[in-house]
Amino acid sequence: MKAALLGHGTIGVGVDRIAAALPEIDIVRVLALETDDEILGRHTYDADDILNDPEIDTVIEVMGGIHPAWEFLSRAMEAGKNVVTANKAVVAAYYRELVALSLEKKVAFRCTAAVGGGIPWLVNLSREKQGDCITKIGGIMNGTTNYILSKMDHEGADFSEALKEAQRLGYAEKDPSADIDGDDVRRKLAISASIAFDGFADENDVPTAGIRSCLSEDLSFAHERHSVLKLAAFASRKELGISAFVSPVLVPESSLLSSVPGNLNLVTLTAEHAGELSFAGQGAGRFPTAKNVILDLLDIEAGNGAFYAPETQPLAIKNDSELLPWYFRTESPEGIPEDVVEAREGRRLITKPISVFQAFSLLENIQKSDSAAFMAGILS
Amino acid sequence: MKAALLGHGTIGVGVDRIAAALPEIDIVRVLALETDDEILGRHTYDADDILNDPEIDTVIEVMGGIHPAWEFLSRAMEAGKNVVTANKAVVAAYYRELVALSLEKKVAFRCTAAVGGGIPWLVNLSREKQGDCITKIGGIMNGTTNYILSKMDHEGADFSEALKEAQRLGYAEKDPSADIDGDDVRRKLAISASIAFDGFADENDVPTAGIRSCLSEDLSFAHERHSVLKLAAFASRKELGISAFVSPVLVPESSLLSSVPGNLNLVTLTAEHAGELSFAGQGAGRFPTAKNVILDLLDIEAGNGAFYAPETQPLAIKNDSELLPWYFRTESPEGIPEDVVEAREGRRLITKPISVFQAFSLLENIQKSDSAAFMAGILS
Repeated sequence: MKAALLGHGTIGVGVDRIAAALPEIDIVRVLALETDDEILGRHTYDADDILNDPEIDTVIEVMGGIHPAWEFLSRAMEAGKNVVTANKAVVAAYYRELVALSLEKKVAFRCTAAVGGGIPWLVNLSREKQGDCITKIGGIMNGTTNYILSKMDHEGADFSEALKEAQRLGYAEKDPSADIDGDDVRRKLAISASIAFDGFADENDVPTAGIRSCLSEDLSFAHERHSVLKLAAFASRKELGISAFVSPVLVPESSLLSSVPGNLNLVTLTAEHAGELSFAGQGAGRFPTAKNVILDLLDIEAGNGAFYAPETQPLAIKNDSELLPWYFRTESPEGIPEDVVEAREGRRLITKPISVFQAFSLLENIQKSDSAAFMAGILS
Repeated sequence: MKAALLGHGTIGVGVDRIAAALPEIDIVRVLALETDDEILGRHTYDADDILNDPEIDTVIEVMGGIHPAWEFLSRAMEAGKNVVTANKAVVAAYYRELVALSLEKKVAFRCTAAVGGGIPWLVNLSREKQGDCITKIGGIMNGTTNYILSKMDHEGADFSEALKEAQRLGYAEKDPSADIDGDDVRRKLAISASIAFDGFADENDVPTAGIRSCLSEDLSFAHERHSVLKLAAFASRKELGISAFVSPVLVPESSLLSSVPGNLNLVTLTAEHAGELSFAGQGAGRFPTAKNVILDLLDIEAGNGAFYAPETQPLAIKNDSELLPWYFRTESPEGIPEDVVEAREGRRLITKPISVFQAFSLLENIQKSDSAAFMAGILS
């Protein structure tokens, strides 16, 4: 395969270095903001040098961001080139268009590294759909927040200390909003749900709560209930559409989810025949993520290049049937009507089992007067 | 695909039922000890009806046992048929011959369900080898013993009570030896190591200790060290050959392995680029195991039918370089020389870090006078 790299940052360098040892993958051109010894003779500042080159059959997009990634990917596919991307932002935003173009132009479109970094999640999710029915997916899809919560939990750090340490280690960005507010997870859940449930789950329809206002008392509350606090995401098949949400959750200490250490990810699918299957590993990082890009390329080279799910009809997201008890910590408890409260202790309370929709409505309501309010679903 | 089933027990019925809904897989003949409505018109008592039928292109072996499974599998391959098996006994015993026949006759040989039941372990292990170097594999590969140890741990049951309950639930056989003495795990480890390290790991060369003599005091000892007792198996790439062993181990409470619940399995590979990747799910059971057989069949139908690893040169198993502290509980402590002892407390002791080879030699030595001695590696 004659391939070109769009982007030569953390992931791009990893892909280039692994590919250098593989006879199957020849990376002949690299689009990058600056040149260096590694890409000398292959470097270009101009995407046209790649997109208009008929010798290049496969384009690897690892630039990140929605634009111009989408324009480059679509132009590559229009030109009959296979594409592989690790970029969840562009996949979540242009999922329907990318799948449609791939079908129309009969080119491969793969994005395993876009969800779960180095974990072969999307490719297994797609494989396990065969002869089976996926009923639920979910888990820990963001290593940064898992690292922060673990550090707060094990070392008693407060949120800002733990975040600073995550930034120092390179786990968190300078602007950590996408991680800590759950938007990164929401994109990954939307892509996973689209593949699992054969349709298009719009990230904008997924209610999302993050961990920005998490306090050590929230972690203590979890411990009192023999649980651990994690930021997780879940989507389930329902009679009409799907349910899907991103939120902090209390998971029982005896569960696999509770034991996901440091910055790892763990995602689980539930299928009628296969039962529960979990996949854990590095959700980010140069070589793990690059490895998943490389495996997508090798799959294409071996002729297994089709996208994981060809259907792109919109999936209706309905969160009214999944009932859970929820934990709230708020200075505005009056925003939570007495008839849904199961128990109170100071500013902390637990609700009776209520729908995900209702929980997010309550959060929105109390956040009007208490922007530091915190909420977590209680899993059993 | 026109396929035939050899065997119509737990797994065979599962395969037949899932295949019934799949246009790709037509199961036209079933070898079984007795007939019933489900296989009416397709049943035969005579394997020749299948092996000599040129219309049948794929043979699915789910009889179990080494003979006549090996004879049937080899005859099918000789006749140019693809084979899929869920039978770890025959794969571990005839690994080299099965791979050689598959290469010679250019037919598919797949056995994903032979290790890890419903977990897509072997197929991911094989996939992750591409462009990477697997350095270590291992984990919990037997649900029966994990169930027994969990029940002893959480409910204070003694070994025989927990075993009886496992038998009542169908998790353990009437003769549970293969599970509780570790032989089942040893086979699964040998097959996994053969694929991970590109050679043939002979199950007979893998030192194996089981849980038959496990007492509640051994579990308490683990808890005192913030650990959990599990039966696990590990194999690592070494400079000359590999290390490989099956043994009870103490795993830290904070690890994923410690949280594997009930009768689940969790296996992990470590690779240079991908890092640690773990796969967890049902290690046995009708539909999970059948599902993995079905996915092997669909892979073959899609043209991805090659075996996971074509190399079958013998792998030397050397357990002299992996050093661990070990826990022993024995009435014959004089069998353990003072210079390797780190700490003693009554009949329980911990060694200094010693090789796996030395630990198994010590166990063998003390078992001469104390057949109920118990040993576990201490993982950090």
